[in-house]
Amino acid sequence: MQSTPACLLHIGRTQLQLFIVSEMRTRVSEFARRLSVEWWRRDWPSAAERIVVGVSGGGDSMALLLALDELLKARRFTLKIVVAHLDHGLRGRSGAVDAEWVAGVARELGHEVVLGSVPVKERAAFARDNIEQAARRARYEFFTATAKEYGARLVATAHTLDDQAETVLLRLMRGSGADGLGGMRPARPLDAGGDIPSGRPFEASRDVQLVRPLLCWARRVQTVDYCRERGVQFRTDAMNDDERYARVRVRHNLLPLMEAFNPQVVEALARTAELLQDDAAALDGLAARLLNEARDATATAGVGGLMTPEAMSAAQPAAPPLRVGVLAAAAVAVRRRALRQWLGRGRGDLRRIEMGHVLAVERLLAGGRGGRIAELPGGTSVERRRAWIHFCLKKS
Amino acid sequence: MQSTPACLLHIGRTQLQLFIVSEMRTRVSEFARRLSVEWWRRDWPSAAERIVVGVSGGGDSMALLLALDELLKARRFTLKIVVAHLDHGLRGRSGAVDAEWVAGVARELGHEVVLGSVPVKERAAFARDNIEQAARRARYEFFTATAKEYGARLVATAHTLDDQAETVLLRLMRGSGADGLGGMRPARPLDAGGDIPSGRPFEASRDVQLVRPLLCWARRVQTVDYCRERGVQFRTDAMNDDERYARVRVRHNLLPLMEAFNPQVVEALARTAELLQDDAAALDGLAARLLNEARDATATAGVGGLMTPEAMSAAQPAAPPLRVGVLAAAAVAVRRRALRQWLGRGRGDLRRIEMGHVLAVERLLAGGRGGRIAELPGGTSVERRRAWIHFCLKKS
Repeated sequence: MQSTPACLLHIGRTQLQLFIVSEMRTRVSEFARRLSVEWWRRDWPSAAERIVVGVSGGGDSMALLLALDELLKARRFTLKIVVAHLDHGLRGRSGAVDAEWVAGVARELGHEVVLGSVPVKERAAFARDNIEQAARRARYEFFTATAKEYGARLVATAHTLDDQAETVLLRLMRGSGADGLGGMRPARPLDAGGDIPSGRPFEASRDVQLVRPLLCWARRVQTVDYCRERGVQFRTDAMNDDERYARVRVRHNLLPLMEAFNPQVVEALARTAELLQDDAAALDGLAARLLNEARDATATAGVGGLMTPEAMSAAQPAAPPLRVGVLAAAAVAVRRRALRQWLGRGRGDLRRIEMGHVLAVERLLAGGRGGRIAELPGGTSVERRRAWIHFCLKKS
Repeated sequence: MQSTPACLLHIGRTQLQLFIVSEMRTRVSEFARRLSVEWWRRDWPSAAERIVVGVSGGGDSMALLLALDELLKARRFTLKIVVAHLDHGLRGRSGAVDAEWVAGVARELGHEVVLGSVPVKERAAFARDNIEQAARRARYEFFTATAKEYGARLVATAHTLDDQAETVLLRLMRGSGADGLGGMRPARPLDAGGDIPSGRPFEASRDVQLVRPLLCWARRVQTVDYCRERGVQFRTDAMNDDERYARVRVRHNLLPLMEAFNPQVVEALARTAELLQDDAAALDGLAARLLNEARDATATAGVGGLMTPEAMSAAQPAAPPLRVGVLAAAAVAVRRRALRQWLGRGRGDLRRIEMGHVLAVERLLAGGRGGRIAELPGGTSVERRRAWIHFCLKKS
């Protein structure tokens, strides 16, 4: 047997061809090359359409814009870029200065620009949200509106490996499971409420997709270096150094301490996130199947007259009654995910639903036949009636 | 609808009865009561047999010994305790002093004592192991031998919530997946190499079980408080303050910093570990089923003459050839776990097998039909031949 390397790397035929063809064109920087590899790997469209790029003007988003621009000018991509910049109204005049500056750079590069402005502080107060959440929501609403206005299917943001590591640690300290610790997804539907695992390839979704082309490989320091290499300035946001924000304290204090244990800890955290995303995707798929099995039996039972008319009317179509026996026989991790999905469908969302509520519903599965109830926040509840659990809206 | 609390707690009938019966007996301390609740919840035997308790003499293990002793004397449990103490030979004379001291306390309480001594430093040098690993291995070998000698089915150690949080963080910083981040299991077979998820109830295993009755509820400070409450001294090991050990730095520096983000971070980390243990158990079960499916098809193929004689002989019975199509259709998280299990069976263990090797084997599934190989450490490899992958021992 001839000697071979420890790991035989396989490059798919399509990728190899693309690689050879592209090497024949204008050379691009290492940063832009890595961006293009990630882009192809994810099967994101690279030709003949508009994409929206979120640009705050910081090092990360300037690097993303510059690298996409480089790939366009080297004819690797034939996309049209729409630069979207939102002024959150949190920094008075300097917000407007940043907006003008981003617009200037973008136009000089030859791209379309959309500037938006939202009074985030007022919005947060009104919605009783924290500033970070309100800013995030305003930003994603703005991106979605811009994408729809310009007929774009993709919105690209510049989250890096460092952002991912920070997200993982923030969620870890709250005691999250695999779904939370999976961190940000490299791609997700932009309309959805948050980062959810999705096994679907890009083409399967007709909605606007949020993509994060730097998330899985680029360190923040690389984005800064690349901006310098290109001789382009970037803006620094004072909020990035404001230690009143937990994320800033993670960046300034916690991650440096962890780097004393493992200099590659940011990469390690991102790897963990990727593994847990895969786990969550597999378990969510199983949970959906379990719900289907528990419900299919229900349809028969309804016809068979086992349910009272009240139960039939109380049952929300989105969350039909489920058979206790089917749920009880499933693996605990799958069952709890299924119950969570079911509660989300019945209530319309999962706001204020915590693990404790899922466990309370799960306990209904264990007992005898007595009518028992698990109350949920917001006036909903789950009732056990004989061999079924029912999702109920509270009678007012 | 009448008003009910937000979470209806369910107490199983058996537990309720036990609770009522036990309340009629001698009252025990809160610490001992919580230990007994955990013991019952886990279905560990509490009557008519010997169990081995690992006692270093520190606060945690003294608290475990004292609480078990309290439950015995209050007749909640009718176990016989064998106190096992190992001198690791790392602290010269003070190791022997500790051993005598532990033996003295244990005998005074009326329990049997087994003292052992192992030159861990010499062993570590010989096995090219680090001191912590060598000490851990020596300790578990000693516990196993003691359990077998005394006919005990259980060995109890005093790992706390704090130990669990430290373990989770140490593994997180190495980039572990759900299996590693699941941390220590509350119960596992002692003969196995490490903490592995096991959905089996205690009775299903005939081996000696390692159980950790404090792991899921007791903070370190509670063990110290309980020792004080009982008026019993405990020893402090200088190694517990030696910052050359990563675990000590996690305890002294990292966890206190994280507590500034969330004062309950230790509990949060332990909750994460429990959630990920459940996930890992569900996914491992699915992976075992996948291997079975991929292999069942193989048996038919062998009979049908699709395999060459060389392939048949190269196939290890523990890791028979697997059908590519079956593996490729599975969810990625399940497939990778299945491949890992398969490699472990073929090689006898998973030493030096990293995620990169699993990914190299996974890549064999994607390509065409050409004969391709993924080399593994220690002279083994996996070969793709047509629609099959084969586990091979290298010809020397």
